[in-house]
Amino acid sequence: MAVVIVGSMAFDTIETPFDRKERVLGGSCTYGAIAASLFDNPKIVGVVGDDFKDEHLDILKSKGVDTAGVSREKGKSFFWEGKYHLDMNTRETIKTELNVFEKFDPKIPENYKEAGFLFLANIDPELQLKVLSSMQSPDFVVCDTMNLWIDIKKEKLEEVFRRVDCVVLNDEEVRQYTGKANLLTGAKEIQKAGVTYVIIKKGEHGASILGPEGFYFSAPSFPVENVTDPTGAGDSFAGAFIGYIASAAKGGKISRDMIKKAVVYGNAVASYTVEGFSIDRLSSVSMKKIDERIEEIRNITLF
Amino acid sequence: MAVVIVGSMAFDTIETPFDRKERVLGGSCTYGAIAASLFDNPKIVGVVGDDFKDEHLDILKSKGVDTAGVSREKGKSFFWEGKYHLDMNTRETIKTELNVFEKFDPKIPENYKEAGFLFLANIDPELQLKVLSSMQSPDFVVCDTMNLWIDIKKEKLEEVFRRVDCVVLNDEEVRQYTGKANLLTGAKEIQKAGVTYVIIKKGEHGASILGPEGFYFSAPSFPVENVTDPTGAGDSFAGAFIGYIASAAKGGKISRDMIKKAVVYGNAVASYTVEGFSIDRLSSVSMKKIDERIEEIRNITLF
Repeated sequence: MAVVIVGSMAFDTIETPFDRKERVLGGSCTYGAIAASLFDNPKIVGVVGDDFKDEHLDILKSKGVDTAGVSREKGKSFFWEGKYHLDMNTRETIKTELNVFEKFDPKIPENYKEAGFLFLANIDPELQLKVLSSMQSPDFVVCDTMNLWIDIKKEKLEEVFRRVDCVVLNDEEVRQYTGKANLLTGAKEIQKAGVTYVIIKKGEHGASILGPEGFYFSAPSFPVENVTDPTGAGDSFAGAFIGYIASAAKGGKISRDMIKKAVVYGNAVASYTVEGFSIDRLSSVSMKKIDERIEEIRNITLF
Repeated sequence: MAVVIVGSMAFDTIETPFDRKERVLGGSCTYGAIAASLFDNPKIVGVVGDDFKDEHLDILKSKGVDTAGVSREKGKSFFWEGKYHLDMNTRETIKTELNVFEKFDPKIPENYKEAGFLFLANIDPELQLKVLSSMQSPDFVVCDTMNLWIDIKKEKLEEVFRRVDCVVLNDEEVRQYTGKANLLTGAKEIQKAGVTYVIIKKGEHGASILGPEGFYFSAPSFPVENVTDPTGAGDSFAGAFIGYIASAAKGGKISRDMIKKAVVYGNAVASYTVEGFSIDRLSSVSMKKIDERIEEIRNITLF
């Protein structure tokens, strides 16, 4: 079953306490698609500027990603510059240039519309709603967001939450969205909006799932010592998550055990993402390597 | 095999965003002993003032705790006042009055000295060393500490670490002690001091273990929605941890699997501690209730 991913495609300048890289490939759609491509041939929707060359699209295409939904506009691609603090868990945004992304108007190609799986990566919730309306009737829709939209477009975001099956938020976003300090209480409140599954991403502390019967799973992150660049960890988590579900469900029922395993795959894939700058490590990792980490995650949780 | 616990016995005034309690029973030795008493009859060493009444000691005695090593001195007991922030994960110290604890000189009763298990709860590392020298040859020694000692007595603390089998630190303490942002890198550095096991307590995010072969276990905390008072969570974690090991080892080999299970018991017991103020919930919980949470922790980690 096909996966459609809608999100940003960007160039990022990233500074860590140890290194700095200028204008490397980034964006939620980019990371999500490469991660999902480990399981499926995702179809992406995004916008790039004329600085986004064929060689950049070719990286995605070489992974089996369908880029028919990427439009190229006059001007520059979305640009983000960020700086990570010493603990690599916190970062500040130095610069955001929306450029062509400012007028992003996602157009879903006809052959995307009957896809069974949809990942609405972090974009304006109004665009997320537009995409939802363009699709026929996907089996499973996952959405992500960010602090900005919780701040300025909460009502639209609530509408998105009502219409998707699963939201993927980090711990800070759960707290910001609900005003609840306790993550479990917060996630339950989000479920009340009508979402079946809430996934809480906790960075180095792993991820938790709430389903119809409440909290039911907690997966540690794979312990990475050489964190090189945390950018895209959350997007590749979500891309691998929906990619795994699409490949495992094969049009059949999506079970709670499948969601569990998808979260573990998300953690394993994200653990590789952070080992390199940009998509460097993510795009070179093999399924065999990922399965090795799945087994290691199993080993470190059994008692 | 007997467990000896040395630490503080105190009165705490605790303010949370939801409630305030004046001068309730506290202290690392108190929490540790009540937690360990679920598995063993621990023998404690501490000092109290003349405001610490027989009724307070009776609470410990009723749990099977041997209080022969508690000395009562003229003056007031150690007093701590703290205030928890809205997220319940961070707190500030409003007041610390050492009182009789300032001149605490732990004296180990003769019948304690051959105990097989020793928990050096958070006290001055010089006193921890003194206690270590008083014991005959315990099979397994666990120590805790705090930011203050890492700040002002790091050399003495290093000496403690060289002489114990296991250190239990929270994530901030690992970072402070080693200056390493990455917890895994930090914990490995602490192992180099000669410690066999390093347990990293991560509060709501659970706990991790490094053993002779490096990182090998990660346990989620039991998800508690009604966190009432986090005070003593770490101390009751460590008390249950050593109590479980003492009861499971029965004088035999201490295996890495035993350490794993001890961490899960530590998490389960601590999850009850935080559900009530002071020792209220911890001291009323049954082993049956704890075993229920052990099974729930198992369920939320299996995939």
